[in-house]
Amino acid sequence: MSSEIAVKALIFDVFGTLVDWRGSIAREARQALEPLGLTLDWPAFADAWRGEYQGAMEEVRSGRLPFSKLDRLHRRNLDIVLTRLGVDGQVDEAVRARLNLAWHRLDAWPDVEAGLQALRRHYLLAPCSNGNISLMVDLARRNGWHWDAILGAELARDYKPKPTVYLHACAALDLKREQVLMVAAHSSDLAAAAAAGLRTAHIARPDEAGTGLGESAPRVPVDLAVTDLRELASALSR
Amino acid sequence: MSSEIAVKALIFDVFGTLVDWRGSIAREARQALEPLGLTLDWPAFADAWRGEYQGAMEEVRSGRLPFSKLDRLHRRNLDIVLTRLGVDGQVDEAVRARLNLAWHRLDAWPDVEAGLQALRRHYLLAPCSNGNISLMVDLARRNGWHWDAILGAELARDYKPKPTVYLHACAALDLKREQVLMVAAHSSDLAAAAAAGLRTAHIARPDEAGTGLGESAPRVPVDLAVTDLRELASALSR
Repeated sequence: MSSEIAVKALIFDVFGTLVDWRGSIAREARQALEPLGLTLDWPAFADAWRGEYQGAMEEVRSGRLPFSKLDRLHRRNLDIVLTRLGVDGQVDEAVRARLNLAWHRLDAWPDVEAGLQALRRHYLLAPCSNGNISLMVDLARRNGWHWDAILGAELARDYKPKPTVYLHACAALDLKREQVLMVAAHSSDLAAAAAAGLRTAHIARPDEAGTGLGESAPRVPVDLAVTDLRELASALSR
Repeated sequence: MSSEIAVKALIFDVFGTLVDWRGSIAREARQALEPLGLTLDWPAFADAWRGEYQGAMEEVRSGRLPFSKLDRLHRRNLDIVLTRLGVDGQVDEAVRARLNLAWHRLDAWPDVEAGLQALRRHYLLAPCSNGNISLMVDLARRNGWHWDAILGAELARDYKPKPTVYLHACAALDLKREQVLMVAAHSSDLAAAAAAGLRTAHIARPDEAGTGLGESAPRVPVDLAVTDLRELASALSR
Protein backbone atom coordinates (compact mmCIF):
# COMPACT_ATOMS: atom_id res chain seq x y z
CA MET A 1 0.00 0.00 0.00
CA SER A 2 1.06 3.56 -0.64
CA SER A 3 1.58 4.98 2.83
CA GLU A 4 4.28 4.29 5.40
CA ILE A 5 1.76 4.04 8.22
CA ALA A 6 1.16 0.43 9.17
CA VAL A 7 -2.35 -0.95 9.17
CA LYS A 8 -3.25 -2.49 12.55
CA ALA A 9 -6.89 -3.47 12.08
CA LEU A 10 -9.17 -4.64 9.29
CA ILE A 11 -12.87 -3.82 9.47
CA PHE A 12 -15.32 -5.55 7.18
CA ASP A 13 -18.51 -4.95 5.37
CA VAL A 14 -20.53 -8.16 5.80
CA PHE A 15 -23.61 -8.41 3.53
CA GLY A 16 -22.27 -9.29 0.10
CA THR A 17 -18.61 -9.00 1.10
CA LEU A 18 -18.47 -11.94 3.54
CA VAL A 19 -21.84 -13.63 3.08
CA ASP A 20 -24.05 -14.57 0.16
CA TRP A 21 -27.21 -12.78 1.25
CA ARG A 22 -29.05 -13.46 -2.01
CA GLY A 23 -28.68 -17.24 -2.10
CA SER A 24 -29.24 -17.56 1.64
CA ILE A 25 -32.34 -15.37 1.77
CA ALA A 26 -33.81 -17.14 -1.27
CA ARG A 27 -33.34 -20.48 0.54
CA GLU A 28 -34.77 -19.20 3.81
CA ALA A 29 -37.77 -17.55 2.15
CA ARG A 30 -38.57 -20.73 0.32
CA GLN A 31 -38.34 -22.79 3.51
CA ALA A 32 -40.64 -20.36 5.33
CA LEU A 33 -43.21 -19.61 2.64
CA GLU A 34 -43.49 -22.67 0.39
CA PRO A 35 -45.22 -24.71 3.14
CA LEU A 36 -47.94 -22.00 3.10
CA GLY A 37 -48.63 -22.80 -0.56
CA LEU A 38 -46.77 -19.80 -1.92
CA THR A 39 -44.73 -20.26 -5.08
CA LEU A 40 -42.56 -17.24 -5.74
CA ASP A 41 -39.35 -16.49 -7.63
CA TRP A 42 -37.18 -16.88 -4.51
CA PRO A 43 -34.06 -15.02 -5.69
CA ALA A 44 -36.34 -12.22 -6.86
CA PHE A 45 -37.94 -12.23 -3.41
CA ALA A 46 -34.46 -11.79 -1.90
CA ASP A 47 -33.75 -8.94 -4.31
CA ALA A 48 -37.05 -7.25 -3.46
CA TRP A 49 -36.38 -7.48 0.28
CA ARG A 50 -32.81 -6.21 -0.12
CA GLY A 51 -34.16 -3.53 -2.45
CA GLU A 52 -35.85 -1.78 0.48
CA TYR A 53 -32.59 -1.71 2.49
CA GLN A 54 -31.09 1.66 1.56
CA GLY A 55 -34.41 3.49 1.74
CA ALA A 56 -35.09 2.27 5.26
CA MET A 57 -31.63 3.24 6.48
CA GLU A 58 -31.96 6.64 4.81
CA GLU A 59 -34.88 7.35 7.15
CA VAL A 60 -32.42 6.97 10.04
CA ARG A 61 -29.46 8.71 8.39
CA SER A 62 -31.60 11.72 7.59
CA GLY A 63 -32.90 11.95 11.16
CA ARG A 64 -36.52 11.28 10.17
CA LEU A 65 -36.43 8.07 12.24
CA PRO A 66 -34.50 7.62 15.49
CA PHE A 67 -31.84 4.89 15.31
CA SER A 68 -33.42 1.46 14.93
CA LYS A 69 -31.52 -1.80 14.65
CA LEU A 70 -31.33 -3.36 11.23
CA ASP A 71 -33.49 -6.29 12.43
CA ARG A 72 -36.31 -3.82 12.90
CA LEU A 73 -35.76 -2.20 9.49
CA HIS A 74 -35.64 -5.65 7.89
CA ARG A 75 -39.01 -6.41 9.45
CA ARG A 76 -40.53 -3.20 8.14
CA ASN A 77 -39.14 -4.06 4.71
CA LEU A 78 -40.45 -7.63 4.85
CA ASP A 79 -43.95 -6.35 5.55
CA ILE A 80 -43.70 -3.94 2.62
CA VAL A 81 -42.60 -6.70 0.25
CA LEU A 82 -45.29 -9.16 1.36
CA THR A 83 -47.94 -6.49 0.86
CA ARG A 84 -46.60 -5.62 -2.57
CA LEU A 85 -46.68 -9.28 -3.59
CA GLY A 86 -50.32 -9.48 -2.52
CA VAL A 87 -49.69 -12.28 0.02
CA ASP A 88 -50.10 -10.20 3.15
CA GLY A 89 -53.04 -12.24 4.47
CA GLN A 90 -51.29 -15.57 4.02
CA VAL A 91 -48.25 -14.95 6.23
CA ASP A 92 -48.90 -14.71 9.96
CA GLU A 93 -46.88 -13.01 12.67
CA ALA A 94 -44.96 -16.11 13.76
CA VAL A 95 -43.79 -16.87 10.22
CA ARG A 96 -42.77 -13.25 9.67
CA ALA A 97 -40.83 -13.12 12.94
CA ARG A 98 -38.92 -16.27 12.09
CA LEU A 99 -38.32 -15.33 8.46
CA ASN A 100 -37.02 -11.93 9.54
CA LEU A 101 -34.18 -13.67 11.36
CA ALA A 102 -33.12 -15.26 8.06
CA TRP A 103 -30.51 -12.48 7.98
CA HIS A 104 -28.92 -14.15 11.04
CA ARG A 105 -28.57 -17.39 9.06
CA LEU A 106 -26.62 -16.28 6.01
CA ASP A 107 -23.81 -18.45 4.63
CA ALA A 108 -20.32 -17.16 4.03
CA TRP A 109 -18.56 -17.18 0.67
CA PRO A 110 -16.17 -20.16 0.52
CA ASP A 111 -12.95 -18.16 1.03
CA VAL A 112 -14.02 -16.29 4.16
CA GLU A 113 -13.36 -18.65 7.06
CA ALA A 114 -9.78 -19.47 6.01
CA GLY A 115 -9.15 -15.89 4.91
CA LEU A 116 -10.16 -14.43 8.26
CA GLN A 117 -8.09 -17.03 10.11
CA ALA A 118 -4.99 -16.03 8.14
CA LEU A 119 -5.63 -12.31 8.57
CA ARG A 120 -6.20 -12.69 12.31
CA ARG A 121 -2.57 -13.71 12.82
CA HIS A 122 -1.42 -10.18 11.99
CA TYR A 123 -4.39 -7.86 12.43
CA LEU A 124 -7.28 -7.02 14.70
CA LEU A 125 -10.50 -7.95 12.90
CA ALA A 126 -14.01 -6.60 13.35
CA PRO A 127 -17.13 -6.26 11.26
CA CYS A 128 -18.15 -2.69 10.45
CA SER A 129 -21.57 -3.56 9.13
CA ASN A 130 -24.98 -1.98 9.17
CA GLY A 131 -26.21 -5.23 10.76
CA ASN A 132 -26.90 -5.17 14.48
CA ILE A 133 -24.71 -6.82 17.11
CA SER A 134 -26.88 -9.93 17.63
CA LEU A 135 -26.99 -10.48 13.86
CA MET A 136 -23.19 -10.27 13.66
CA VAL A 137 -22.86 -12.64 16.63
CA ASP A 138 -25.11 -15.21 14.97
CA LEU A 139 -23.31 -14.99 11.61
CA ALA A 140 -19.95 -15.45 13.34
CA ARG A 141 -21.15 -18.51 15.23
CA ARG A 142 -22.71 -20.03 12.12
CA ASN A 143 -19.68 -19.47 9.91
CA GLY A 144 -16.82 -20.04 12.37
CA TRP A 145 -15.41 -16.52 12.53
CA HIS A 146 -13.42 -15.08 15.43
CA TRP A 147 -13.88 -11.32 15.67
CA ASP A 148 -11.97 -9.16 18.14
CA ALA A 149 -15.02 -6.94 18.59
CA ILE A 150 -18.32 -6.19 16.88
CA LEU A 151 -18.22 -2.65 15.54
CA GLY A 152 -20.54 -0.88 13.10
CA ALA A 153 -23.97 0.72 13.06
CA GLU A 154 -25.25 -0.30 16.49
CA LEU A 155 -22.16 1.11 18.21
CA ALA A 156 -22.33 4.36 16.24
CA ARG A 157 -26.15 4.49 16.34
CA ASP A 158 -26.21 5.52 12.68
CA TYR A 159 -25.76 3.82 9.32
CA LYS A 160 -22.97 3.63 6.74
CA PRO A 161 -21.96 5.36 4.58
CA LYS A 162 -22.14 8.18 7.16
CA PRO A 163 -18.60 8.91 8.36
CA THR A 164 -19.51 8.53 12.03
CA VAL A 165 -19.79 4.75 11.61
CA TYR A 166 -16.22 4.36 10.33
CA LEU A 167 -14.88 6.88 12.85
CA HIS A 168 -16.59 5.14 15.77
CA ALA A 169 -14.89 1.91 14.71
CA CYS A 170 -11.43 3.53 14.65
CA ALA A 171 -12.05 5.25 18.00
CA ALA A 172 -13.22 2.02 19.64
CA LEU A 173 -9.92 0.40 18.66
CA ASP A 174 -7.89 3.50 19.66
CA LEU A 175 -6.41 3.62 16.19
CA LYS A 176 -5.75 6.44 13.80
CA ARG A 177 -7.92 6.31 10.70
CA GLU A 178 -4.96 5.50 8.47
CA GLN A 179 -4.20 2.44 10.64
CA VAL A 180 -7.57 0.90 9.78
CA LEU A 181 -8.34 -0.86 6.50
CA MET A 182 -11.99 -1.03 5.44
CA VAL A 183 -12.70 -4.17 3.41
CA ALA A 184 -15.80 -4.27 1.20
CA ALA A 185 -17.20 -5.48 -2.11
CA HIS A 186 -18.98 -2.16 -2.69
CA SER A 187 -17.35 0.94 -4.09
CA SER A 188 -19.80 3.25 -2.32
CA ASP A 189 -18.75 1.87 1.07
CA LEU A 190 -15.07 2.21 0.23
CA ALA A 191 -15.44 5.72 -1.15
CA ALA A 192 -17.06 6.80 2.11
CA ALA A 193 -14.41 5.06 4.23
CA ALA A 194 -11.62 6.68 2.20
CA ALA A 195 -13.26 10.09 2.52
CA ALA A 196 -13.29 9.53 6.30
CA GLY A 197 -9.53 8.88 6.19
CA LEU A 198 -9.38 5.08 6.31
CA ARG A 199 -7.42 2.76 4.03
CA THR A 200 -9.51 0.63 1.68
CA ALA A 201 -9.50 -2.83 0.09
CA HIS A 202 -11.98 -4.04 -2.53
CA ILE A 203 -13.07 -7.68 -2.71
CA ALA A 204 -14.55 -8.85 -6.02
CA ARG A 205 -17.98 -10.44 -5.60
CA PRO A 206 -19.15 -10.42 -9.21
CA ASP A 207 -22.21 -12.58 -8.55
CA GLU A 208 -23.38 -10.98 -5.30
CA ALA A 209 -26.69 -9.72 -6.62
CA GLY A 210 -27.14 -12.40 -9.30
CA THR A 211 -24.76 -13.65 -11.96
CA GLY A 212 -22.59 -10.77 -13.09
CA LEU A 213 -24.58 -8.26 -11.03
CA GLY A 214 -21.96 -7.62 -8.36
CA GLU A 215 -18.76 -5.60 -8.57
CA SER A 216 -15.88 -7.49 -10.19
CA ALA A 217 -13.58 -4.49 -9.70
CA PRO A 218 -13.67 -1.23 -7.76
CA ARG A 219 -15.20 1.83 -9.38
CA VAL A 220 -13.29 4.21 -7.11
CA PRO A 221 -9.62 4.51 -6.12
CA VAL A 222 -8.66 1.99 -3.42
CA ASP A 223 -5.44 0.92 -1.72
CA LEU A 224 -5.88 -2.74 -2.70
CA ALA A 225 -8.18 -4.71 -5.00
CA VAL A 226 -8.28 -8.50 -4.70
CA THR A 227 -10.52 -11.38 -5.70
CA ASP A 228 -11.13 -12.81 -2.22
CA LEU A 229 -9.97 -12.86 1.39
CA ARG A 230 -7.24 -15.43 0.81
CA GLU A 231 -5.69 -13.14 -1.77
CA LEU A 232 -6.08 -10.24 0.67
CA ALA A 233 -4.18 -12.19 3.32
CA SER A 234 -1.41 -12.95 0.84
CA ALA A 235 -1.22 -9.35 -0.37
CA LEU A 236 -0.97 -8.02 3.19
CA SER A 237 1.70 -10.49 4.25
CA ARG A 238 4.10 -9.41 1.52
CA MET B 1 -30.90 -22.37 39.00
CA SER B 2 -34.31 -21.49 40.30
CA SER B 3 -36.19 -20.38 37.21
CA GLU B 4 -37.45 -22.35 34.23
CA ILE B 5 -36.20 -19.77 31.76
CA ALA B 6 -33.03 -20.96 30.07
CA VAL B 7 -29.92 -18.83 30.18
CA LYS B 8 -28.57 -18.13 26.68
CA ALA B 9 -25.65 -15.80 27.36
CA LEU B 10 -23.08 -15.18 30.06
CA ILE B 11 -21.68 -11.68 30.52
CA PHE B 12 -18.60 -11.11 32.63
CA ASP B 13 -17.06 -8.61 34.92
CA VAL B 14 -13.36 -8.57 34.01
CA PHE B 15 -11.14 -6.70 36.52
CA GLY B 16 -10.76 -9.05 39.47
CA THR B 17 -13.19 -11.65 38.11
CA LEU B 18 -11.16 -12.77 35.07
CA VAL B 19 -7.83 -11.01 35.54
CA ASP B 20 -5.47 -10.37 38.42
CA TRP B 21 -5.28 -6.60 38.15
CA ARG B 22 -3.29 -6.19 41.37
CA GLY B 23 -0.40 -8.52 40.57
CA SER B 24 -0.27 -7.37 36.94
CA ILE B 25 -0.32 -3.65 37.70
CA ALA B 26 2.33 -4.08 40.41
CA ARG B 27 4.57 -5.83 37.86
CA GLU B 28 3.94 -3.22 35.16
CA ALA B 29 4.47 -0.29 37.51
CA ARG B 30 7.75 -1.74 38.67
CA GLN B 31 8.90 -2.30 35.07
CA ALA B 32 8.00 1.29 34.16
CA LEU B 33 9.19 3.18 37.24
CA GLU B 34 12.10 1.25 38.76
CA PRO B 35 14.42 2.21 35.85
CA LEU B 36 13.75 5.85 36.85
CA GLY B 37 15.24 5.15 40.28
CA LEU B 38 11.90 4.92 42.05
CA THR B 39 11.49 2.28 44.73
CA LEU B 40 7.88 1.97 45.80
CA ASP B 41 5.69 -0.68 47.39
CA TRP B 42 4.41 -1.93 44.02
CA PRO B 43 1.26 -3.76 45.20
CA ALA B 44 0.40 -0.68 47.26
CA PHE B 45 0.89 1.41 44.11
CA ALA B 46 -1.60 -0.86 42.32
CA ASP B 47 -4.04 -0.47 45.21
CA ALA B 48 -3.67 3.31 45.19
CA TRP B 49 -4.31 3.50 41.42
CA ARG B 50 -7.30 1.17 41.67
CA GLY B 51 -8.47 3.15 44.71
CA GLU B 52 -9.28 6.12 42.47
CA TYR B 53 -11.43 3.96 40.15
CA GLN B 54 -14.90 4.30 41.63
CA GLY B 55 -14.55 8.03 42.29
CA ALA B 56 -13.59 8.74 38.69
CA MET B 57 -16.49 6.71 37.32
CA GLU B 58 -18.87 8.40 39.73
CA GLU B 59 -18.11 11.69 37.98
CA VAL B 60 -19.53 10.15 34.81
CA ARG B 61 -22.40 8.27 36.45
CA SER B 62 -23.56 11.43 38.16
CA GLY B 63 -23.46 13.42 34.93
CA ARG B 64 -20.74 15.81 36.17
CA LEU B 65 -18.44 14.52 33.41
CA PRO B 66 -19.55 13.44 29.93
CA PHE B 67 -18.80 9.79 29.18
CA SER B 68 -15.06 9.16 28.96
CA LYS B 69 -13.43 5.81 28.27
CA LEU B 70 -11.84 4.05 31.18
CA ASP B 71 -8.38 4.53 29.62
CA ARG B 72 -8.88 8.25 30.09
CA LEU B 73 -10.09 7.89 33.67
CA HIS B 74 -7.14 5.59 34.41
CA ARG B 75 -4.79 8.30 33.15
CA ARG B 76 -6.42 10.95 35.34
CA ASN B 77 -6.07 8.56 38.28
CA LEU B 78 -2.43 7.77 37.50
CA ASP B 79 -1.58 11.47 37.53
CA ILE B 80 -3.35 11.87 40.89
CA VAL B 81 -1.42 8.96 42.41
CA LEU B 82 1.98 10.10 41.11
CA THR B 83 1.37 13.58 42.52
CA ARG B 84 0.30 12.16 45.87
CA LEU B 85 3.46 10.04 46.02
CA GLY B 86 5.55 13.15 45.40
CA VAL B 87 7.16 11.75 42.24
CA ASP B 88 5.33 13.91 39.73
CA GLY B 89 8.50 15.52 38.36
CA GLN B 90 10.30 12.22 37.83
CA VAL B 91 7.78 10.59 35.45
CA ASP B 92 7.51 12.10 31.99
CA GLU B 93 4.64 11.96 29.49
CA ALA B 94 5.95 8.99 27.49
CA VAL B 95 6.36 6.83 30.61
CA ARG B 96 2.88 7.79 31.84
CA ALA B 97 1.27 7.02 28.47
CA ARG B 98 2.89 3.59 28.34
CA LEU B 99 2.22 2.78 32.00
CA ASN B 100 -1.42 3.78 31.56
CA LEU B 101 -1.84 0.95 29.06
CA ALA B 102 -0.73 -1.53 31.75
CA TRP B 103 -4.47 -2.19 32.15
CA HIS B 104 -4.39 -3.68 28.61
CA ARG B 105 -1.68 -6.14 29.75
CA LEU B 106 -3.34 -7.84 32.71
CA ASP B 107 -2.97 -11.58 33.19
CA ALA B 108 -5.94 -13.91 33.63
CA TRP B 109 -6.49 -16.12 36.66
CA PRO B 110 -5.39 -19.69 35.82
CA ASP B 111 -8.90 -21.15 35.41
CA VAL B 112 -10.19 -18.56 32.95
CA GLU B 113 -8.99 -19.69 29.51
CA ALA B 114 -10.22 -23.28 29.90
CA GLY B 115 -13.37 -22.16 31.70
CA LEU B 116 -14.40 -19.79 28.92
CA GLN B 117 -13.67 -22.45 26.30
CA ALA B 118 -15.99 -24.89 28.04
CA LEU B 119 -18.73 -22.30 28.57
CA ARG B 120 -18.55 -21.18 24.93
CA ARG B 121 -19.82 -24.56 23.77
CA HIS B 122 -23.25 -23.82 25.24
CA TYR B 123 -23.54 -20.07 25.71
CA LEU B 124 -22.85 -16.76 24.06
CA LEU B 125 -20.06 -15.03 25.98
CA ALA B 126 -19.24 -11.34 26.29
CA PRO B 127 -17.50 -9.07 28.76
CA CYS B 128 -19.74 -6.54 30.48
CA SER B 129 -16.94 -4.51 31.98
CA ASN B 130 -16.30 -0.87 32.71
CA GLY B 131 -13.17 -1.22 30.60
CA ASN B 132 -13.27 0.22 27.09
CA ILE B 133 -13.49 -1.83 23.90
CA SER B 134 -9.78 -1.61 22.97
CA LEU B 135 -8.82 -2.66 26.48
CA MET B 136 -11.11 -5.70 26.26
CA VAL B 137 -9.72 -6.55 22.82
CA ASP B 138 -6.15 -6.46 24.10
CA LEU B 139 -6.93 -8.58 27.18
CA ALA B 140 -8.67 -11.16 25.00
CA ARG B 141 -5.72 -11.38 22.61
CA ARG B 142 -3.22 -11.61 25.47
CA ASN B 143 -5.11 -14.31 27.34
CA GLY B 144 -6.56 -16.38 24.49
CA TRP B 145 -10.24 -15.64 24.95
CA HIS B 146 -12.91 -15.83 22.25
CA TRP B 147 -15.75 -13.41 22.94
CA ASP B 148 -18.89 -13.27 20.83
CA ALA B 149 -19.04 -9.49 21.28
CA ILE B 150 -17.57 -6.79 23.50
CA LEU B 151 -20.37 -5.31 25.58
CA GLY B 152 -20.21 -3.04 28.64
CA ALA B 153 -19.57 0.61 29.45
CA GLU B 154 -18.43 1.92 26.06
CA LEU B 155 -21.53 0.52 24.34
CA ALA B 156 -23.85 1.93 27.02
CA ARG B 157 -21.81 5.14 27.42
CA ASP B 158 -22.18 4.90 31.19
CA TYR B 159 -20.64 2.87 34.00
CA LYS B 160 -21.74 -0.10 36.09
CA PRO B 161 -23.45 -0.50 38.45
CA LYS B 162 -25.97 1.73 36.64
CA PRO B 163 -28.72 -0.50 35.21
CA THR B 164 -28.33 0.88 31.68
CA VAL B 165 -25.04 -1.00 31.25
CA TYR B 166 -26.59 -4.41 31.98
CA LEU B 167 -29.69 -3.58 29.95
CA HIS B 168 -27.67 -2.45 26.92
CA ALA B 169 -25.85 -5.80 27.03
CA CYS B 170 -29.13 -7.77 27.02
CA ALA B 171 -30.59 -5.59 24.27
CA ALA B 172 -27.49 -5.97 22.08
CA LEU B 173 -27.91 -9.75 22.25
CA ASP B 174 -31.71 -9.54 21.74
CA LEU B 175 -32.21 -11.48 24.95
CA LYS B 176 -34.60 -11.08 27.82
CA ARG B 177 -32.89 -10.07 31.05
CA GLU B 178 -33.63 -13.44 32.64
CA GLN B 179 -31.83 -15.18 29.75
CA VAL B 180 -28.56 -13.44 30.67
CA LEU B 181 -26.28 -14.49 33.52
CA MET B 182 -23.96 -11.85 34.95
CA VAL B 183 -20.75 -13.40 36.28
CA ALA B 184 -18.66 -11.43 38.77
CA ALA B 185 -16.48 -11.67 41.86
CA HIS B 186 -18.10 -8.59 43.39
CA SER B 187 -21.39 -8.60 45.26
CA SER B 188 -22.11 -4.97 44.38
CA ASP B 189 -21.98 -5.77 40.66
CA LEU B 190 -24.24 -8.81 41.10
CA ALA B 191 -26.73 -6.95 43.27
CA ALA B 192 -27.09 -4.31 40.57
CA ALA B 193 -27.43 -6.92 37.81
CA ALA B 194 -30.08 -8.81 39.79
CA ALA B 195 -31.98 -5.58 40.45
CA ALA B 196 -31.96 -4.99 36.69
CA GLY B 197 -33.54 -8.44 36.18
CA LEU B 198 -30.52 -10.54 35.18
CA ARG B 199 -29.46 -13.90 36.62
CA THR B 200 -26.25 -13.86 38.65
CA ALA B 201 -23.24 -16.06 39.39
CA HIS B 202 -20.53 -15.28 41.94
CA ILE B 203 -16.92 -16.36 41.42
CA ALA B 204 -14.73 -16.52 44.53
CA ARG B 205 -11.55 -14.46 44.17
CA PRO B 206 -10.47 -14.34 47.81
CA ASP B 207 -7.06 -12.82 47.05
CA GLU B 208 -8.10 -10.28 44.43
CA ALA B 209 -7.11 -7.20 46.41
CA GLY B 210 -4.33 -8.87 48.42
CA THR B 211 -4.32 -12.09 50.42
CA GLY B 212 -7.77 -12.60 51.90
CA LEU B 213 -8.94 -9.17 50.74
CA GLY B 214 -11.26 -10.37 47.98
CA GLU B 215 -14.70 -11.95 48.25
CA SER B 216 -14.58 -15.67 49.01
CA ALA B 217 -18.38 -15.85 48.97
CA PRO B 218 -21.25 -13.61 47.84
CA ARG B 219 -22.68 -11.11 50.32
CA VAL B 220 -25.98 -10.89 48.43
CA PRO B 221 -28.43 -13.51 47.09
CA VAL B 222 -27.22 -14.99 43.77
CA ASP B 223 -28.37 -17.81 41.50
CA LEU B 224 -25.02 -19.60 41.64
CA ALA B 225 -21.84 -19.30 43.72
CA VAL B 226 -18.72 -21.15 42.56
CA THR B 227 -14.97 -21.09 43.15
CA ASP B 228 -13.88 -20.55 39.55
CA LEU B 229 -14.94 -20.69 35.89
CA ARG B 230 -14.33 -24.41 35.53
CA GLU B 231 -16.75 -25.05 38.35
CA LEU B 232 -19.19 -22.65 36.73
CA ALA B 233 -19.00 -24.62 33.47
CA SER B 234 -19.65 -27.87 35.38
CA ALA B 235 -22.54 -26.37 37.34
CA LEU B 236 -24.21 -25.06 34.18
CA SER B 237 -23.82 -28.33 32.25
CA ARG B 238 -25.74 -30.33 34.85
